[in-house]
Amino acid sequence: MSDPSTVDANLRQRPVLAVTCGEPAGIGPEVSIKAAWQLRAEINSVLIGDAAFLAMIAAEIDPQIRLVALSQQALRNNGLPQFPQDRIAVIDCALDAHVKPGLLDARNGRAMLRMLDIAIDGAQQKIFDGMVTAPLQKSTINDAGVPFTGHTEYLAEQSATAQVVMMLATDRVTPPLRVALATTHLPLKDVAAAINFDSLSRTIDILHADLQNKFGLKQPRILVTGLNPHAGEGGYLGREEIDVIIPALQAAKARGIAVSGPYPADTLFQQKYLADADCVLAMYHDQGLPVLKYASFGHGINITLGLPFIRTSVDHGTALDLAAAGLGRADHGSMIAALNAAAQMVRATVRWAD
Amino acid sequence: MSDPSTVDANLRQRPVLAVTCGEPAGIGPEVSIKAAWQLRAEINSVLIGDAAFLAMIAAEIDPQIRLVALSQQALRNNGLPQFPQDRIAVIDCALDAHVKPGLLDARNGRAMLRMLDIAIDGAQQKIFDGMVTAPLQKSTINDAGVPFTGHTEYLAEQSATAQVVMMLATDRVTPPLRVALATTHLPLKDVAAAINFDSLSRTIDILHADLQNKFGLKQPRILVTGLNPHAGEGGYLGREEIDVIIPALQAAKARGIAVSGPYPADTLFQQKYLADADCVLAMYHDQGLPVLKYASFGHGINITLGLPFIRTSVDHGTALDLAAAGLGRADHGSMIAALNAAAQMVRATVRWAD
Repeated sequence: MSDPSTVDANLRQRPVLAVTCGEPAGIGPEVSIKAAWQLRAEINSVLIGDAAFLAMIAAEIDPQIRLVALSQQALRNNGLPQFPQDRIAVIDCALDAHVKPGLLDARNGRAMLRMLDIAIDGAQQKIFDGMVTAPLQKSTINDAGVPFTGHTEYLAEQSATAQVVMMLATDRVTPPLRVALATTHLPLKDVAAAINFDSLSRTIDILHADLQNKFGLKQPRILVTGLNPHAGEGGYLGREEIDVIIPALQAAKARGIAVSGPYPADTLFQQKYLADADCVLAMYHDQGLPVLKYASFGHGINITLGLPFIRTSVDHGTALDLAAAGLGRADHGSMIAALNAAAQMVRATVRWAD
Repeated sequence: MSDPSTVDANLRQRPVLAVTCGEPAGIGPEVSIKAAWQLRAEINSVLIGDAAFLAMIAAEIDPQIRLVALSQQALRNNGLPQFPQDRIAVIDCALDAHVKPGLLDARNGRAMLRMLDIAIDGAQQKIFDGMVTAPLQKSTINDAGVPFTGHTEYLAEQSATAQVVMMLATDRVTPPLRVALATTHLPLKDVAAAINFDSLSRTIDILHADLQNKFGLKQPRILVTGLNPHAGEGGYLGREEIDVIIPALQAAKARGIAVSGPYPADTLFQQKYLADADCVLAMYHDQGLPVLKYASFGHGINITLGLPFIRTSVDHGTALDLAAAGLGRADHGSMIAALNAAAQMVRATVRWAD
C-alpha cells in the first residue's frame, strides 16, 4: 500500500469508476483487480470490497500491483482523494466470513449489498462517474435472508428508478452491436402479455434518451423486432405487432425518435441492416441475446439504461469452479470491456453536455 | 437446346437433384439457372419450370448456358435420360400466364404446385437423388384457390409424412452450424403449450435419424436449448424444462441418443460449446434462427428432415423488387449452398449405406 498524498496531475482526465467486486468466492475479485490494473493509465478504477482480502489476491496475481485502502468513513468525510496512476484505490467493505474460493457462504451475502450501496451512493453524489459490477451469486444474498432478484432490479430500487432497460453490447464487431430488451427475465409463456403500448413506449423513450445522453448519439437509430416469427406475417402468425408494436412505434416516431420496424428477428441481425443502426430493441431475452453473445465471443457487456448514473457489468457469472481451481485462470476480457464501455460513456456524456 | 443422345460417362458420379424454380415473377428462375450452371461439373441439376421461359432467361444471363427440355410425359415413360455435363436438363412445367418480373399473377399459382409434384414424384421414384426448392410466394398459390401454408407442410402432406423437422444450416463457420426447431411458425404466445413430451421426443428421433442417415454422422451430438430464459433457472423462470424438456431428454438418452441440455439459449451459441456439437435443437423460431442467419451472412440453407427423400431450400424469399429491376442482380449464393448441401447429403447417404 502506498502513500496517498502523492498527487497525479493526470487524475482528472481519467474517468473515476467504482468497481464492485461481487461474490468473493467467485472470479469477481480476480477479474476486477486484473482489469483495473491493466487499464490504470486510462481509468481511475476504485475497487469496492474487503481490502485485506483484495490485497492478498492482488499480491498473488502480480506483486507489482499497488492497492491503497480507504475506509467508507474517509470517503464519506472527504470524498475520494487523488491517487497517482500507479496505484488502485480500494474502499474497504469488510466481509463477515473467511472466503474459501468456490464455496458460497451466506454470511457474506449482506456484504455484497453493502458494496453496491457504496457504489450507488458514490455515483449519485458524483464521487464516481459511473459503476461497474462483477458477478454476484443471487442465492448467497437470498440465503442471507434478503430477497434479491438481481443487480439490475436492486440498482433501480435503490435509486428510485421506476423502469430500467437492459442492454447488452459488444464492440467485437463493426459497427458495435447493441441489443436492448423490452422484457427480461420472464417465463416465455408470459412474454406476450407483458408487452403493452405503455411499457414499450417507456422502453423506447429510455433507450432513445440514454443513447443520446450516455452514448453521445444525436439521433440514435433503433431497429425493433416483432414479437412473433416473421414479425407476425401481417397478423397471420400473431396480432401483437398490429395491436401493440406498430402503434407504439408510430407514436415514438411522432415524438421524433428514429425507430423502425417491427422486423422479423431472424433476418434483422444481418450486417446489411445492422450497418445503419445504433441499437436493436428485441422483445425478449432469447430473441435478442443469443446473437449478441455469439458475436461477442464471451466479451459482451451488460448496460443498465434509465438509471441516474452510468452502470455496466460483465456478461458472465461467478464461475465458482474456475475460482476453486485457483487464481490466474479467469479471463478478465469481459471486465475490461465493461470498464472501457463505462469510460466511453463517461466521455460521451461530457461531450454531449458541451 | 442440344442433342440429348450424347451420353456422358461421368453422369452417374454426379448427384441428380431436381430444382423447382418457384415463383416465376421472383428471382427463383434466375438463381436456379445460375447455380445449376455453375455447379454442373459436380451436380446434375434438373430444373423444373416452364422450359420456354427458362430458356429465355438463360439466354439473357449467359448465351453459353445450354438447356435441354424434356416433357413430363417423357420423364414418366423413360425416366431421366443421360445428358452430358455441358447442358442442364429442364422438365417442362408450363405456366398459365405470361410472366411480368416482380408482378404476382394468381394464374401461375397452380403451376408452382405442379413443379413440386414433379419433384416429389421423381424423388420418391428415385429418379432424383433429392430436391432443392427456389422460393415460392404463398399468396399466389392461395389466391389461385389452393390452401397452402408452405413448402415444408406441402412436402410432408404429399409424401404422407406425419412429422417433419425444419433445420437451418450454414458452412460459413467452422464447424458448420446447424439449428433445428422444435416448433416453427407459431405465434409466440402459443409456443410453450405446443411443446410436449411426445412432440419433442419425435423431433429428437427424426433429428437423430436424419443426422445419421442423411449427414453420415454415426453418433450425432445434439445440444438442446431450454424454453425459458436461462433454461428456466431451476424452475424460477418457468417450469417447462423440469416438466417436459428434461424428461424428454432423459428418455432420448435412454434410447441411445447423444442429446444434452437443456442449456440457456443465450450462452449455448458460443464456439466453446458448438465446437463439440453437430446440431442445436432450439425450442422455437426466433430463439434459434437469428444467430444462424447472422452467422451465415445470407447464405444459409433450409433442410427438411423426416421426409422420405432429401430436400434443401434457399433461406431467402422471392425478392420481387430485385426481379422487377431486371436480370443479373440476384445473388445465387444461397442456391449454390442449397445444391451443395443436398449433394453432400446424397453422398453421405451412400457412404452410410455402405
